[in-house]
Amino acid sequence: MLYDRTRLKWNGWGWRDKHYDFEGGEAAFWGFLQQELGVSSVPDTPAIELAELQLPAGRLSAEHLQELRQLLGERVVTSDFERVFHARGRSYSDLLALRQGEVGEVPDAVVYPVSAAEIEALLRFARSQRLALIPFGGGSSVVGGVNAARKADQSGILTLDLTRMNRLLRLDPVSQLASFECGVYGPQLEEALNRQGFTAGHTPQSFEFSTLGGWIAARGAGDRSNRYGKMEEILCAARVLTPEGEWCTLALPASAAGPDLNQLIAGSEGLFGVIVEATIRIHPLAPTEHHTGFLFRDFATGVEAVRALAQSPHPPAMLRLSDEAETQFMFRFRKKPDESPSKAKAYLKKLLAWQGYTATPALLLTGLEGEAGEVWSQLPQLSASCVRHGAFPLGKGAGASWSKSRYNTPYLRDALLEHGVGVETLETAISWSKLMGLYHAVKEALQQVIDQQLGDGVRGFVMTHISHCYHDGASLYFTFAFPQLPGRELEQYQLIKAAACEAIVAQGGTLSHHHGLGADHAPWIVREKGELGMGVLKAVKDRLDPEGILNPGKWL
Amino acid sequence: MLYDRTRLKWNGWGWRDKHYDFEGGEAAFWGFLQQELGVSSVPDTPAIELAELQLPAGRLSAEHLQELRQLLGERVVTSDFERVFHARGRSYSDLLALRQGEVGEVPDAVVYPVSAAEIEALLRFARSQRLALIPFGGGSSVVGGVNAARKADQSGILTLDLTRMNRLLRLDPVSQLASFECGVYGPQLEEALNRQGFTAGHTPQSFEFSTLGGWIAARGAGDRSNRYGKMEEILCAARVLTPEGEWCTLALPASAAGPDLNQLIAGSEGLFGVIVEATIRIHPLAPTEHHTGFLFRDFATGVEAVRALAQSPHPPAMLRLSDEAETQFMFRFRKKPDESPSKAKAYLKKLLAWQGYTATPALLLTGLEGEAGEVWSQLPQLSASCVRHGAFPLGKGAGASWSKSRYNTPYLRDALLEHGVGVETLETAISWSKLMGLYHAVKEALQQVIDQQLGDGVRGFVMTHISHCYHDGASLYFTFAFPQLPGRELEQYQLIKAAACEAIVAQGGTLSHHHGLGADHAPWIVREKGELGMGVLKAVKDRLDPEGILNPGKWL
Repeated sequence: MLYDRTRLKWNGWGWRDKHYDFEGGEAAFWGFLQQELGVSSVPDTPAIELAELQLPAGRLSAEHLQELRQLLGERVVTSDFERVFHARGRSYSDLLALRQGEVGEVPDAVVYPVSAAEIEALLRFARSQRLALIPFGGGSSVVGGVNAARKADQSGILTLDLTRMNRLLRLDPVSQLASFECGVYGPQLEEALNRQGFTAGHTPQSFEFSTLGGWIAARGAGDRSNRYGKMEEILCAARVLTPEGEWCTLALPASAAGPDLNQLIAGSEGLFGVIVEATIRIHPLAPTEHHTGFLFRDFATGVEAVRALAQSPHPPAMLRLSDEAETQFMFRFRKKPDESPSKAKAYLKKLLAWQGYTATPALLLTGLEGEAGEVWSQLPQLSASCVRHGAFPLGKGAGASWSKSRYNTPYLRDALLEHGVGVETLETAISWSKLMGLYHAVKEALQQVIDQQLGDGVRGFVMTHISHCYHDGASLYFTFAFPQLPGRELEQYQLIKAAACEAIVAQGGTLSHHHGLGADHAPWIVREKGELGMGVLKAVKDRLDPEGILNPGKWL
Repeated sequence: MLYDRTRLKWNGWGWRDKHYDFEGGEAAFWGFLQQELGVSSVPDTPAIELAELQLPAGRLSAEHLQELRQLLGERVVTSDFERVFHARGRSYSDLLALRQGEVGEVPDAVVYPVSAAEIEALLRFARSQRLALIPFGGGSSVVGGVNAARKADQSGILTLDLTRMNRLLRLDPVSQLASFECGVYGPQLEEALNRQGFTAGHTPQSFEFSTLGGWIAARGAGDRSNRYGKMEEILCAARVLTPEGEWCTLALPASAAGPDLNQLIAGSEGLFGVIVEATIRIHPLAPTEHHTGFLFRDFATGVEAVRALAQSPHPPAMLRLSDEAETQFMFRFRKKPDESPSKAKAYLKKLLAWQGYTATPALLLTGLEGEAGEVWSQLPQLSASCVRHGAFPLGKGAGASWSKSRYNTPYLRDALLEHGVGVETLETAISWSKLMGLYHAVKEALQQVIDQQLGDGVRGFVMTHISHCYHDGASLYFTFAFPQLPGRELEQYQLIKAAACEAIVAQGGTLSHHHGLGADHAPWIVREKGELGMGVLKAVKDRLDPEGILNPGKWL
């Protein structure tokens, strides 16, 4: 099995043996960070070891376990590692809890079904025994989407790990559709498709550690969503097992036969049922891809350029515009200390300064892909459009650097947590006319709530980028780092998260563009969906899962 | 008011004073049709006059009417014309009933609200008085979507005509979004947008006689949906008034904050609430458009060419491929009897015959639009792709002819009904790999059920085209004509409709791609959505309209 759980970190991101690669610039990085945060040093804050963890005893009786083992044999596990691995996702507050050994609720057992029949049996078992059942894919949720939880009247928690269900079931090269079992991880899915000349084109930053079912459940988005669509668009049909029976949608290119039930399944986050199979839209592998960068004089100008591209008939596959803070961060921290600047580079720097690109620069990374003819005919149009908006073309170096390091970036959070620095991201989407207003409001809310708690010139660092673009708007992705308040880490973070969510809903943005709601956005969701909207979702939940056994304690 | 009801036909399509324009070729048309149907003549079958209609007395008491008039004043109407105009949509069976004077249920009163507050008052009134309330836009439904109906426990029927709510509320040129009251007709909507340099790009064949609310309720599609999207994609946000209160969605470019409730509103056909306002995605007016035609040696070859275009990165705005029967129909019936063929045309005809294009030709009409540069750079690619699939380029004449006559075509049905010839259309969508299978199955089912009923060499005429294309499939649009069976017209049609629906669901197609379900597809919808899918929709209905006052007797 490709994804042996024990090869993964139980309290951090990704592979157990992999750590953030500073690319030789670790000292420069910490120097930059200390300066930005207004601190002269960072402490050592190591995580607790697995052996030191005090997990609560499992609540399942011997009879329960025996019954489960009759259903799934050895695929019922209760080891400390498995229980704690599945206790939470990978949000900042999850990592805080795991690193400090204050794990809270953990599943009483983890089950690894291999068939729909087994899941149906588990649903019946959980229902009859009043157990909470948590569908679990890669467990990469950053919004509390898979955390172990139960209602007061539930006698235990079972986590349903779906990753042994990862087969390609059908591939229809004519309709360009593929059906998979939903526990399939990103790399497994792409490998199966690539072998037949196809791709789903869906590569979120969590790609290596997230599954098709998770992508659908949380309406994920890959970096090239302009070309391949967001997960709810990639989804064509689904098979969902609910406590009230099987719920299937038909694979159709479009329909007017009543409301589109796929769009209730996408975003259901394990609350309506277990998404066991899905048919997705696939594409022939693109033979050519080209990343290239542009520098704008400021973020606002860059936003106008990106909007023009997004509203053009054929936007690039990827558009990623960093604000001034993120651009500074990317340029400075990527500069290796021993890198001696060449004459050409020095000249370029002078030229950029002279033309006004260095005071508040904003970096746009773009990605084109497709047939060679398509890419090379799009490139001059892309460049012309950016230059018309005052951009300085940086060539392909900037794009290549980002492309190389993107799966490395999530490991940085663990490195910071080793040294008392908290870091988290959050994202939203909003229409173009409100985008800059939301940008400033959320940025200021984050900066203010972080700084107020710290005082004494110690401060947070907030940076932002536009990550996904649409005809009528875009998503904004905020990253914020801050010195932790020892002993008050969770409270500190909860205040930050609350301030950001308040700012987002006040501006009319969405609580999430591609991470989902989980438990973390529960207090605000009614302000986005409205009382009656929530009433509709509750009615659907009650119809499919009347006793509320599925994924309790989340947003509904 | 642009759409004075009395200027419209109460028992046919469109403007009262407008009739089908045979373009001078009426004799040739009837000759062609008689030959295809195997009859030597057609009878005269005039419709009943309005004055001859025997409408049931209104069931509303004087107190009811007084209360309604206190709410809406003169905008409560009970004339025979208004009652019968709103009794039905414009399907073949609707026209049969109206023309024969066997109208069935009619609304007891028609109300024309001008504000959300009035609609809320009407919802309260209908609820307290146990009346059925039918939301009604243009009334162009061809699936029984707006027909007057009530449940056994409802004491009367009120039809809510929304067409006096037709204002542009907001236009956001930056986000390219516009908010309208949903009673706005197509031409009114486009006029308001065009004035500011924008278009919604949504021009279904019913464009002149359908409303924004109807388009959303029935998930409509315009001829250029490849470029502008289907209505559920054009929809960005909605305001729906339900018996249980107001239900609003937020205008967002995309979201992962739970399921997408817009996709429950699109396709709700007045069963969940009254769609009073909507925010839609708009586009700058395209300065250039170009229609051009291609001839394929047969339909199957054309389908492959259309699929290649639909799966290319930038499909043309419109792709419309007729099968052999429809191509013959378009060519022959468009030929005016006094048209003397030029030498060049004669040569072209010989050339086509020699190259094998005349035995079973299939006509593809394409439409490109956008900036001039875009259109003229797309055109050679389009031509090259079609020629690669064996097409003969016909130039822009074929496209112009279609473009000119498209709003004329729906009037033809009335002309045929004057002479005992029934004609109706139905449409579906399916993935590419199943498309030819469904095409043959539905075509054969239609031909067989029509011919069996007629006998004696008298037969039906079935023709088909692909009207909307997607990455993974396309819609098929069937038109069928047949000599009516006098005295058994409705029964004859019901058998035809049933045979077609059976064939569609058996093949895995959808019951409707852009017309909606109405009452007509009710018997088959559970086979498309499944028991649990229908259970989910029923749960939503019960939450929003617990007494079932809204649009009873339809698909739920």
